[in-house]
Formats: sequence, structure tokens, C-alpha cells
Amino acid sequence: MGSSFSDRLADAVRRTRTPLVVGIDPRADRLPHSLLPQEAYDDHAAVAEAYATFGEAIVEIAAGRVCAVKPQLAFFEECGPAGATALARVAKAAREQGLLVIFDGKRSDIDSTAEGYARAYLGAKSAWGADALTVSPYLGGDSLDPFERVAVEQDAGLFVLVKTSNPGGKMFQDLQLGERRLFEHVAAYVEERAKATAGACGYGVMGAVVGATYPAQLEQLRREMPSAWFLIPGFGAQGGAAKEIVPAWDGQGLGGVVNSSRKIIFAYRDAPYAAKFGEANWKGAVSAAIDEARAAFASAHAAFSA
Amino acid sequence: MGSSFSDRLADAVRRTRTPLVVGIDPRADRLPHSLLPQEAYDDHAAVAEAYATFGEAIVEIAAGRVCAVKPQLAFFEECGPAGATALARVAKAAREQGLLVIFDGKRSDIDSTAEGYARAYLGAKSAWGADALTVSPYLGGDSLDPFERVAVEQDAGLFVLVKTSNPGGKMFQDLQLGERRLFEHVAAYVEERAKATAGACGYGVMGAVVGATYPAQLEQLRREMPSAWFLIPGFGAQGGAAKEIVPAWDGQGLGGVVNSSRKIIFAYRDAPYAAKFGEANWKGAVSAAIDEARAAFASAHAAFSA
Repeated sequence: MGSSFSDRLADAVRRTRTPLVVGIDPRADRLPHSLLPQEAYDDHAAVAEAYATFGEAIVEIAAGRVCAVKPQLAFFEECGPAGATALARVAKAAREQGLLVIFDGKRSDIDSTAEGYARAYLGAKSAWGADALTVSPYLGGDSLDPFERVAVEQDAGLFVLVKTSNPGGKMFQDLQLGERRLFEHVAAYVEERAKATAGACGYGVMGAVVGATYPAQLEQLRREMPSAWFLIPGFGAQGGAAKEIVPAWDGQGLGGVVNSSRKIIFAYRDAPYAAKFGEANWKGAVSAAIDEARAAFASAHAAFSA
Repeated sequence: MGSSFSDRLADAVRRTRTPLVVGIDPRADRLPHSLLPQEAYDDHAAVAEAYATFGEAIVEIAAGRVCAVKPQLAFFEECGPAGATALARVAKAAREQGLLVIFDGKRSDIDSTAEGYARAYLGAKSAWGADALTVSPYLGGDSLDPFERVAVEQDAGLFVLVKTSNPGGKMFQDLQLGERRLFEHVAAYVEERAKATAGACGYGVMGAVVGATYPAQLEQLRREMPSAWFLIPGFGAQGGAAKEIVPAWDGQGLGGVVNSSRKIIFAYRDAPYAAKFGEANWKGAVSAAIDEARAAFASAHAAFSA
């Protein structure tokens, strides 16, 4: 047995001194043209090859400077079978660089099918070799059991959707059910399972996806889920700011990792990087954007200072 | 523009005179040994190849006798990139045989990521070429909008998880808000979108996954979602019976398609098929199990009689 995902994530945050996770969300029409010319946007094989090359480059730039990468499965799946090969290449490159790999697939199903997804993705022995996977709770606790069982067995982790950062997330998640809203019911379940599987770091196998555009709820959910790692999307392109994430962290800066995708991987397209680096030096822009995000977290919490 | 998915599904039910959907849920340890010897269970490429061969055979047997097939993505994903190639082969074979293809992936995400999933799977021009996809509602209405937009554009369909057949499904789905439970809120949303996109058959782009182990709820949900196609799992291996599904159907036998997976594709392992056909004639067992399911629906609704 290796160490648990929760402990490996704690180690990675301590070692890299940042909660930053780089989201690998490739998009054909945002890639540097040197990787993919416009006339190839409809060619699934060409797009997949460009995604693999792009993802591998992101991994190389991010290695040692972020705690994990989070490939977004949708964009790879959009390329068909060629995209699967590209995703496997990116995941392999990340593992080889010592980065934890969180697959953002928001999977869910029941019984043996849920176990199928868990066995597909979780752990070094699985076909994909991810360290963790995002999952959706609508199907109930027994749909999450197989994921938890496999995660424990394979020293892998899970992040359950609890409170999401999209404007419409409240449509169902904020429905008031008894004295609690739906997302609070889900949070109670996640905390129960996280506590039952807590590692040396104090956090368990089951974590939570908690949108950073709701800082008050981040504080509340931290109180309600003291044993759960948070995966916090919405930093950067969706408008969250580092200081609003402070409630997610414990005294050591553990407990919450923060994803940024577009603002980092496509930094060459945005001010001020567009002028400074331009498309030709898109890798320099990625690197500078990682530095900027790291600095934002360092100014928000002492654990992340150099 | 071709005809909408809802109308194509109505045509397929009329043409084949059955609501039967065969679920393609391959499992290494249940395949006939002639397709996959036990020593190859851990060889992803060998398993994927066997899944493709098995799926293509199921499609050939089912062609013209069921309205659709529903590959379960989890089991293909379990094989890694080789599984993606296998899934594409099965989907292609189904299309070529004139079967509608419903991908059971229970996908969900927001914004451009949701659109990525939709563009990956929906419609003849997508990389996977599915006619429809199952999706999960937890992220709210704005997470389903991109799926709906692409489905309308590509003449494809969606089935939103509303009420599922697993024992733990009620954990969140049955939570009470005032006079409505969570699944009823989701149902109201699905009906609104189904009505807004209804085709000539009266049913819309957005359908609902409704578990058949709750017949009273099937009747209730039919009343509450008159414009939504139902995809009903849980027939066969999960214990639903044909007569309990009657409330799902309108006078023409439209409105609900019914999935059966294990009881059909692995029929050779179960009584009475095990004795009659055995592993060597596993295809004969599949064919007989399809006949038996068709007969069960025919005895339950006149529209399905020969």
C-alpha cells in the first residue's frame, strides 16, 4: 500500500507551497496556431494530437510548481477515440513529472457501472491511472459507495459535486429541503464518508467540489465538512479571488486546492500576457500566469509564501 | 435538417413494434470464454477487442428487432483508449444496422465544457455519432442548456436523470421541498424543455430517465411530463415487469422505451437459456431473450403485438 490520495495531496501542497491546480481544458480555437492551424479544427485526429502536445507542454511547465493538474475529459472526448489516446498521453506525462492527476469527468452511475467508472480511472493500476476523479451525487449514496470502495483500495481520491459556481447551480442545489438545502444534505454525506476515511493529514478519500464564487458558502461548508478536501473551481476566468478562498484552508494551508484553467493555459491570449509574450511565446505566458496565481495565494495565506 | 430524435425514436418504436432497448454493458468476466479467455481479463487491449466483437454481434442480432441500443460508456472507458476504439466500432455497427444509439454516459458540466460533451456525442457529425445521451441534472438548468442547444441543432436527444431505480436513489431525489420532492423539481424542468422542443410525435428533445422499480412514480411522472420520452432502466435484471411500465405509454405505445441489459446480452448464463443454449450458442440465447422481452411488452400493450 502506498499513501492515501489525501496524504499525497497534502504532501504536494506542502512541497510546492501552493494550492494551485492547473486545469487542462484544451479548445481547438484557442490553441496557438503553431500547434493547430485553423483548417484542421474539424479533423479529430489532428485536434487530438495538438491537445496531447499542448497538454504535455503544460505539464512540463507546471511540474514542481503546482500540486496537481486537472484534465477536463469533455474536450478530449470531443475528439473521439483519438482524444482518448491524447488524454492518456497527458496523464502519463503528468505522472512522470510527479504531478497528481485529477480527472474532471463528473461521473456517476450505480452498482457495477459505478464500479466500472471507478476501476477505469482510479489508481496507478487502472487504465487511465488518475489519482482522483470528480463525481456527481444525484444518484445517491449507494451510487458513490463503489467509487469510495475502489478509491480506498487503490489509494485514490474523489471530489463530489456539492456546490458549483455556475449561476444556475442554485436551481436544484439551493432548494430548501427541511432545514437544509440540497447541497447541505450532500455536504453532510460527504463529510461522513471523508471522516470515516481520513488519512494522516486529517482529510479523507471523499472530497467536495465547492464553487469559489460563493465565499460565504465556502466558509459554511468548511465548517460542515472539516474532513473533506475541497476542489475549488472558478478561480481566474470565473472571477473568484485568492482572498475569498482563505476560509477553505486550515492553519497549514491544507484542505482546499484551487483550479485555474483558461487564465493559465490560454494566458497568451489575455492582457497583460498577450502584449508581453504573444502567441509565439505562449509557454512563457503560461509560466508567468502560474507565477501570478502562486503569488496571489502566497499573499492570501502564509503557508504559501516562499 | 433530418427529422428530430424524438420523431426518429417514435418511428423506430412503430417500425419494430417494441419499446425494447438493448443495453450493451460488456463485462470481461461475463463474456463467453470463446471471446475472451480468463487469462486476458487484465489485458485492456484484449478486453476492448472482445467488447467490440461482442457488441457488434449483439447489434447484428438486435437489428430490426429493437428500437435502439444503449452502450454503457463506463465499461468501455475501463479499457482505456482501446475501449474508446471499441465503443466507436459498436456505435458504427449499430448505425449501419439502422439502430438508434443512446449513449449512457450520464454526463454533466457547465458552459463550454457541457457543450464539449454535447458536441462529442450528439449527432451524426460528432466524433461518436450517437443519437442521444444520458445527462445528470445536479448542476442546474444552465448546465443542461448547452446540451439542449446542440441536441436541437444536431437532431439528437437527451435523457435527464430524474428518478433512478437504485435503492439509494431516494437519498437526495426524494428529499421534500414544500409539496415537491427534488425529482419532481427536475421533472418540471424537463417537461418545460421537452414541451418547448416537441416534434411531430408530441415528444421533445429532452427526455427523462425514470426507474421502473417505482411504478406508482412512473404513472405520476407520465402525468407531470407528458412531452418527455422516458428511458426506463431496471427491466429484467433489476426486477421491473412489463405490465408495470404500461403507465409510461400513450395509446400508440409511444412515450417510453425500456432498457434491458444483462438479462439479454448475458442470457446464456441464466435459466432457462443456460440449459437450452449454453455458452457455445450464446448468440441464440441473446436472440431468444430478445423474443421473450418483446413478447412481454406485446402482452402488456396492443401497440406491440405482432
